[in-house]
Amino acid sequence: MSTTNSIEIDIQKAATSKISQIDFENLAFGNIFTDHMLLCDFADGAWQKPVIKPYEPFLMDPSSRVFHYGQAIFEGMKAYKDEQDSVWLFRPEENFIRFNKSANRLAMPSVPEPVFMDGLKELLKIEQEWVKKGKGNSLYIRPFMIATGTGVIAAPSSQYRFMIILSPAKSYYSGEVKVIIAEHYSRAANGGIGAAKAAGNYSGQFYPTKLANEKGFQQIIWTDDATHTKLEEAGTMNVFFRIGDTLYTAPTSERILDGVTRKSLIELAEREGLKVEVRSVLVSELVEAVQNGTLKEIFGAGTAAVVNPIIGFSYQDVYYELPPTENSYALQLKEKLNNIQYKLAEDTFGWTVKV
Amino acid sequence: MSTTNSIEIDIQKAATSKISQIDFENLAFGNIFTDHMLLCDFADGAWQKPVIKPYEPFLMDPSSRVFHYGQAIFEGMKAYKDEQDSVWLFRPEENFIRFNKSANRLAMPSVPEPVFMDGLKELLKIEQEWVKKGKGNSLYIRPFMIATGTGVIAAPSSQYRFMIILSPAKSYYSGEVKVIIAEHYSRAANGGIGAAKAAGNYSGQFYPTKLANEKGFQQIIWTDDATHTKLEEAGTMNVFFRIGDTLYTAPTSERILDGVTRKSLIELAEREGLKVEVRSVLVSELVEAVQNGTLKEIFGAGTAAVVNPIIGFSYQDVYYELPPTENSYALQLKEKLNNIQYKLAEDTFGWTVKV
Repeated sequence: MSTTNSIEIDIQKAATSKISQIDFENLAFGNIFTDHMLLCDFADGAWQKPVIKPYEPFLMDPSSRVFHYGQAIFEGMKAYKDEQDSVWLFRPEENFIRFNKSANRLAMPSVPEPVFMDGLKELLKIEQEWVKKGKGNSLYIRPFMIATGTGVIAAPSSQYRFMIILSPAKSYYSGEVKVIIAEHYSRAANGGIGAAKAAGNYSGQFYPTKLANEKGFQQIIWTDDATHTKLEEAGTMNVFFRIGDTLYTAPTSERILDGVTRKSLIELAEREGLKVEVRSVLVSELVEAVQNGTLKEIFGAGTAAVVNPIIGFSYQDVYYELPPTENSYALQLKEKLNNIQYKLAEDTFGWTVKV
Repeated sequence: MSTTNSIEIDIQKAATSKISQIDFENLAFGNIFTDHMLLCDFADGAWQKPVIKPYEPFLMDPSSRVFHYGQAIFEGMKAYKDEQDSVWLFRPEENFIRFNKSANRLAMPSVPEPVFMDGLKELLKIEQEWVKKGKGNSLYIRPFMIATGTGVIAAPSSQYRFMIILSPAKSYYSGEVKVIIAEHYSRAANGGIGAAKAAGNYSGQFYPTKLANEKGFQQIIWTDDATHTKLEEAGTMNVFFRIGDTLYTAPTSERILDGVTRKSLIELAEREGLKVEVRSVLVSELVEAVQNGTLKEIFGAGTAAVVNPIIGFSYQDVYYELPPTENSYALQLKEKLNNIQYKLAEDTFGWTVKV
């Protein structure tokens, strides 16, 4: 991938940086943003010239389509700094491709690769001081697109805004995670938008998650909406189950996000000689496995945390706790993936891209 | 219902009105807005003082939750002017109640009744010149709420903005509507947010509707996502089928919006002595009915158009056209409902509320 700036970008630098005010040792996830943002508008059937400018609020009309009809998609990525102060991206092409798949599913225009990729790299060059060295440190990248056309008519917008904002992040530790297996609520329909990284998929999860929180559980493992018998995602992450010495994860589908961390963990596990089966896991199998002692691990997989180990689950009001993990596949895979991301191990897959 | 202004509203009047520039005879739906809007912010766990101010864009942070996680809900209502220049609402309590049901399902705070109802009435008093007399003319009302809290973390926002904007409307005629019955795509999941008037429900409909448009069809009749055998909604409206002399419409559910027009038409039809059955109608029944000549009418029901007659449907690539309607139930019911809304007939139901 070329790092040549093949598009013209209008760059307006911030007069001062706020970086000296940031406590990089104590960062809450996703709350602090860097000095600049990238912005590119779609109007009159074409993408306009991208702009990098100081991070700041912008004006929106009250009738903007995104407020009424939810055309909004995003991606989650990270930039890492190696010991030689170079900044690296992890499989950015995957995020770019998925972003435009989401755009298509929501009847939004595709973002050209130079706008997304060269725009991102240019922004990262300007903000490279915000990417801190050391394992666990990263710069979270949030590309997103919203419908900015006006008018309260339920039809696709003719105007859009693509943006990239950046937020410094520490290694993500969510504490001990207990989950409820969904028996009533669902995150996605057959023939719906569950495979898209669409804003609308998240808004429906908050209420059931709040109900789970009130019962002392941190997340929900989503099941298929028709039968609630197949295990699909954990919270906003893909989910893996280790039964015996085999790792299982559901195949991607219209209901399940094609996660970059998910697919990377599968490839990595296979390279490590671990047995991986990509197939639907039934709730009944999980209960049977925890009862007969073969269920060793459950973990979510996603960009923010890489893996998120789950220590127990509730199903039909019975709580099942997993035995203490020895020789955790989750932690081994996380370590190996992080080593590739931070350039501490050889990237035999060709996943890392220098900015 | 009291029209007393029981809450304090900060009213900032526009210096001039743009009403003289509006061609009220040629209005596209939902594109023109009146001089003022209502705005009320939720912050620090409480609703702040509502403000009525000139209609104008407002500032949003790039990390506003609505852009990333889709917490956004709305309502659609209309105000009508009678021959004595009084302005009337139609069953506003229903919209208010449904708005807060939607809010609850999306983990958003309830809007207090005085903010919604007294705020709306105060706004309508200021904008009463925008409600034009004469059947077909109305002022479309769009209450909505968006998550304005910042931060790209997938959790409910702690800040929200409730707004009401108003758009003058002419009687809605959509031309001859042909529909495709959904065999693959869906608008809602079991245990999802289909019953909420949530922005996220609409964004997923645009792409399948675009595909239908490309085949020469204006809308889609949505079916249940698990089996695609039950007829559920038409486009963004509820749907009725007249087979023989009976009107059928699906029961409301988690997947189907509890439409105010839908429930009003049911009550009105029953008062008129028409037979109404609220039950799921199967695609197979519809095909059988059109083949044996008992399918007389299909129509969508919603606030914008009241009824939207459908002249034919495609299923499994076969197009079925309905015979010309004699004695249309749809048009009779629309006439009777409009007469109540415009105060041309006695409102024996107590549906109309004077502003």
